Amino acid sequence: MDLEDTLLMMPGPVPVAPRVLRAMSKPMINHRSAEFAGIYTDCREILSSVFQTKNNIFLLSGSGTAGMEAAVGSVAGSGDKVIAIENGKFGERFKDLAARYAEVVPLVFEWGLPIDLEMVKEKLEEGAKAITLVHNETSTGILNPASEIGKLAKKHDALFIMDGVTSLGGDDVKVDEWGVDIAIVGSQKCLAAPPGLAVVSVSEKAFEAMKSVSKKPYYNDLMAYKKSGDKPRPETPYTPAIPLFYALQEALHIVKEEGMEARIKRHRILSEAIRAAVAEMKIEMFPQLNEYSHYSNTISAMKAPEGIDGEDIKNDMKKRGVIIAGGQERLKSKIFRIGCMGNITARDVLSTIQQLEIVLNKRGYIESLGAGTEAATRVIDRV
Amino acid sequence: MDLEDTLLMMPGPVPVAPRVLRAMSKPMINHRSAEFAGIYTDCREILSSVFQTKNNIFLLSGSGTAGMEAAVGSVAGSGDKVIAIENGKFGERFKDLAARYAEVVPLVFEWGLPIDLEMVKEKLEEGAKAITLVHNETSTGILNPASEIGKLAKKHDALFIMDGVTSLGGDDVKVDEWGVDIAIVGSQKCLAAPPGLAVVSVSEKAFEAMKSVSKKPYYNDLMAYKKSGDKPRPETPYTPAIPLFYALQEALHIVKEEGMEARIKRHRILSEAIRAAVAEMKIEMFPQLNEYSHYSNTISAMKAPEGIDGEDIKNDMKKRGVIIAGGQERLKSKIFRIGCMGNITARDVLSTIQQLEIVLNKRGYIESLGAGTEAATRVIDRV
Repeated sequence: MDLEDTLLMMPGPVPVAPRVLRAMSKPMINHRSAEFAGIYTDCREILSSVFQTKNNIFLLSGSGTAGMEAAVGSVAGSGDKVIAIENGKFGERFKDLAARYAEVVPLVFEWGLPIDLEMVKEKLEEGAKAITLVHNETSTGILNPASEIGKLAKKHDALFIMDGVTSLGGDDVKVDEWGVDIAIVGSQKCLAAPPGLAVVSVSEKAFEAMKSVSKKPYYNDLMAYKKSGDKPRPETPYTPAIPLFYALQEALHIVKEEGMEARIKRHRILSEAIRAAVAEMKIEMFPQLNEYSHYSNTISAMKAPEGIDGEDIKNDMKKRGVIIAGGQERLKSKIFRIGCMGNITARDVLSTIQQLEIVLNKRGYIESLGAGTEAATRVIDRV
Repeated sequence: MDLEDTLLMMPGPVPVAPRVLRAMSKPMINHRSAEFAGIYTDCREILSSVFQTKNNIFLLSGSGTAGMEAAVGSVAGSGDKVIAIENGKFGERFKDLAARYAEVVPLVFEWGLPIDLEMVKEKLEEGAKAITLVHNETSTGILNPASEIGKLAKKHDALFIMDGVTSLGGDDVKVDEWGVDIAIVGSQKCLAAPPGLAVVSVSEKAFEAMKSVSKKPYYNDLMAYKKSGDKPRPETPYTPAIPLFYALQEALHIVKEEGMEARIKRHRILSEAIRAAVAEMKIEMFPQLNEYSHYSNTISAMKAPEGIDGEDIKNDMKKRGVIIAGGQERLKSKIFRIGCMGNITARDVLSTIQQLEIVLNKRGYIESLGAGTEAATRVIDRV
């Protein structure tokens, strides 16, 4: 199998458009130049509309996790209480991360369960400097109620830190309307750029809160990003990953050309098509929902069917040229996940469903081919 | 001026070979795959010979500063004493960085002055968990005595943390022989890859020391890198900047093809040629040396000649298509710097000298052209 000829349907990295790949082959430039400032500014402007925010936006050379650390570590220090909501692996990461810098108040739900807003309210009533939420929990395929938690955080005067790593750029995220003080996205998810950059939006209230924190992380210190980013010729505090800036700029131009409304609609329809197809094949979705939560529109997590290991499905699919994801840690073997992020097309989704049908047919789980494809097509054609 | 047609003679980013740029246009792959592990392993193997070490090597998706934070923050926590030697901007950064995690014992020399080993000895005698040194101080163009400080650190049982960001891959660095517990390099300097990756080598003694540190940085926690890097299929703890791994691998193949001995020799001769040329033009080198220090072989820092602002020299050079560096912070306007890192050729250096002669002639500092070029050529031809 030629690795360059596989279809990436995993929750990042996602396929990167040839014009984005080509952008990376431009020569290096001085990162303290007007030319680099122009690229940075262009990216920030387009990202403002992706984030639906007037807040300041920064680009960090690091993964989404670097952005998560920047968010928590910059605003909460020793003695500050941070409520960390966990209902999946990335919620857990926020909790672990906050423990390095602040006093964590964990609010843990079993991975795959929805968040109980009453319990969030109770914790907030006890007082906290900040609350963390993973909007789109990639590990379980659930979309958590960011808008509602934003309201609660505001009411109790806690900073609202939201991991939008796999929602921003693919699903609707209203940073200002929801009152998100710090939102984070990774370059290699719905923005369809290569991995290696984190984007962080920061409210004035969050900047205020940073002033009282003494022992911040150094590389991921948002005050340093603000100081450099606020210059008349904006720059980054440390040498940026220049080719990744070239790539992100080009990827954002694609986002702009498609338009965020169309982009969100496409992600929603294609994810609905995946859900329709697997339902037709009698495969259950993994997450349990309540009235405040939804299936993710960028990553679909399914229970491995009775008698089949989720890892086998993943491996069978890989042999057939489609890269999907299994479960992480405690969910390994129990679930499998199909990403639908970035510039994924209907053809990509249908090709994935087609291969999944073949894999499940060969493993004796479904009798004939075509039903999943048909169900998915009905959703796509409905529009 | 076409920005893509300038000659980068600054201390990073440096010109990146077309074959390295092309390597970045390969499609994305799963970063938890055997394929990615192969790239990581190949990089680590070649880097072992660049570092001259048997220590474990990790690649962080971040700048050299991320590597510096990983080094200090992973081994020294609250209450631990860290001696931070400073004789330039990057020594100062180590000091600031250590202050976020540990108790700093600053040992500060005026920027541009050499390190007094007697004072290092005195500080070490008072006891410390670690000592930090910038081997090649990019801000002042001095090469600090790493071997001697390694000996002293060993004698006093302090961990030796060395920033080799602008020496490794261009000058002689013997990590094992010198007893460097943690050495750091950035991808965009002498290795001639694009910016965005930091490489860190870690001794067993350093891993031991990490065990007692509770509040480490999260993204730059070397224990997490060890856990992921030690797997049978090595990986990184967080999503790596895949295109930069493609690029670094290709850049390291160029390093291997040239051979480290030849590469070091080339850097030394070309930097000597720059020094000979500026001496001929009656321009003084900036750093003051003692018996334990040398002029850098990867970056030459010169005093701006009487009556000329260093920034003007930099700007004049840029207009003529050659990007050199000015002085940083307190050294701004006072000095100018010419980088000689990576795959720079004799033609690149001579072209730079030629343009510098024209710039200084137009500003009335030298009367005729050619003397600098002649002096540089004599050094290059001597070999």
